[in-house]
Amino acid sequence: MFREKLKVLDCTIRDGGLINNYKFSDGLVKAVYRAACDSGVDIIELGKKLAVSDEYTREKYGKWNFCDDDDLKMVIDSYESDYRPLIAVMFDVGRVDISALRAADQSPIDMVRTACYVADTDKAIDMARRSKDLGYQTTINIMAPSAAIRTDLMEALDEVGKADEVDYLYLVDSYGAYYSEQVTDYLNLYKEHCPNKELGFHAHNNQQLAFANTQQAIIDGVNLLDATINGMGRGAGNCNLELLLNFLKNPKFDVAPVYKVIQEYFVPLREEIEWGFNDIYGISGHLNQHPRAAMKCRADKEIMDNCYDFLAECTAEV
Amino acid sequence: MFREKLKVLDCTIRDGGLINNYKFSDGLVKAVYRAACDSGVDIIELGKKLAVSDEYTREKYGKWNFCDDDDLKMVIDSYESDYRPLIAVMFDVGRVDISALRAADQSPIDMVRTACYVADTDKAIDMARRSKDLGYQTTINIMAPSAAIRTDLMEALDEVGKADEVDYLYLVDSYGAYYSEQVTDYLNLYKEHCPNKELGFHAHNNQQLAFANTQQAIIDGVNLLDATINGMGRGAGNCNLELLLNFLKNPKFDVAPVYKVIQEYFVPLREEIEWGFNDIYGISGHLNQHPRAAMKCRADKEIMDNCYDFLAECTAEV
Repeated sequence: MFREKLKVLDCTIRDGGLINNYKFSDGLVKAVYRAACDSGVDIIELGKKLAVSDEYTREKYGKWNFCDDDDLKMVIDSYESDYRPLIAVMFDVGRVDISALRAADQSPIDMVRTACYVADTDKAIDMARRSKDLGYQTTINIMAPSAAIRTDLMEALDEVGKADEVDYLYLVDSYGAYYSEQVTDYLNLYKEHCPNKELGFHAHNNQQLAFANTQQAIIDGVNLLDATINGMGRGAGNCNLELLLNFLKNPKFDVAPVYKVIQEYFVPLREEIEWGFNDIYGISGHLNQHPRAAMKCRADKEIMDNCYDFLAECTAEV
Repeated sequence: MFREKLKVLDCTIRDGGLINNYKFSDGLVKAVYRAACDSGVDIIELGKKLAVSDEYTREKYGKWNFCDDDDLKMVIDSYESDYRPLIAVMFDVGRVDISALRAADQSPIDMVRTACYVADTDKAIDMARRSKDLGYQTTINIMAPSAAIRTDLMEALDEVGKADEVDYLYLVDSYGAYYSEQVTDYLNLYKEHCPNKELGFHAHNNQQLAFANTQQAIIDGVNLLDATINGMGRGAGNCNLELLLNFLKNPKFDVAPVYKVIQEYFVPLREEIEWGFNDIYGISGHLNQHPRAAMKCRADKEIMDNCYDFLAECTAEV
């Protein structure tokens, strides 16, 4: 598959940080950045940009929950490279101090992605507008549309469609619930309500379909693709960047640096934190559930592999 | 996805036995059979039916490499069930004594599947004919078509197309190399050369696409689907039966018994033998390689996760 407009966004640190409260070593974040430079990915998202508060401290929540300019620069300056991907950060509606965001030309950040549930789409659009006014590229990532009431989702999409300040609208399979036919169906809805918007796709791997659904999204016209190194991300994780780069066959990409950082950093990391497909996440995805219950099950060593019990619990008549 | 003609074949023991030389405990094989009965799968393949010889002994190669009638009956008789799946075994061309095969009405076996490489297709057709004459349902499973010269494959397909004694022709992604577009392309070729043949599909999960490609095969008209419990099978394994049953939504299937046998038997088994996706198999699949090198790499604890080195080795200029 080769299409010139296709762009790949590496969100390894941002989605992976949901597993360990963004407590990655600087060495790992630098290595991921180096891999992004060397492999030619278009954009790298290095974390969230939340507001520090008494409750949300850098000590407790890890520096990549806040992505201060100095931290980002420390990473960027750690590697000499002719090619550099754009730097993205993520906003969560309600947990951001947008007044603290500097103009894009004074910041290492190039793109601000705003994540929201359907009900908060207007707030997210407002944040995207203000980010755009400051010179950033912008995206709106509506989470968990698979669990939204269709008419609510349609209304939200109409609002995004009217907002010229939103560069990309994302279809996000938060629960890993979609088969390829649902990817197509939802993308058709997104295109119908936002005919002039470039689309992005963000998959989760609950049913071993993150990579396959990303291919489906490409076929359906999506041009901005999220992926993570080794599929690292919350719960069942995401689309594996290395598999995706192999698939894309675009000469601008080189997969070898991704395998290099996997061998050197992710193989040991897999001993410390868990992500990726397993039976429990498979059930959770099939049932279109928030991964909360599945993550709780996986955190308890006594029951973490009790998939029959988990299925019974999730499907019990009340 | 619901289509009445769709049938599911559980080949857990047959493909899984390639990992451990068919040294499964009787308890596990019985539990898999019980799960097949209770979950409503259409066919269960309990092993290969090779000829015993001085070289191929039951002691060294495990009883499920030979599937004697008494062994099969021991499993079938171990569980009382109103519903029973058909029993299949696999023939390997050149390693079978077909004269020892009794008539179907005197045997617990219902279906004989003959696996062959493209070059041996005529021999496989001969074996299918003789099996059919004895009253068995028959399939031809042409292995590794992704590595065959297209014209050779087309000739082989023409021969299968002319053989009325072959009930099903299988597309087999032996190397886990296919993306969905190749599944469609090869199936179109198979349909063109065997327009009157029912088709089967057998996936491997090297690139996390076994389940997704099986969905694609369904979309493209395949009606006989191979899957294994927990995806157990050689190398990266196969399409996960539990994910497939969830997808099919056919009321004749019940996924809970599959999760039960996973919890009780496969979770402990995973500590003993390895199968499933990992970086090494991902590279092997992308390069359309026989899994031999990848399996060798995985068997060496010193280098089993050295994916960057493995990629370099596989792609080195000679």
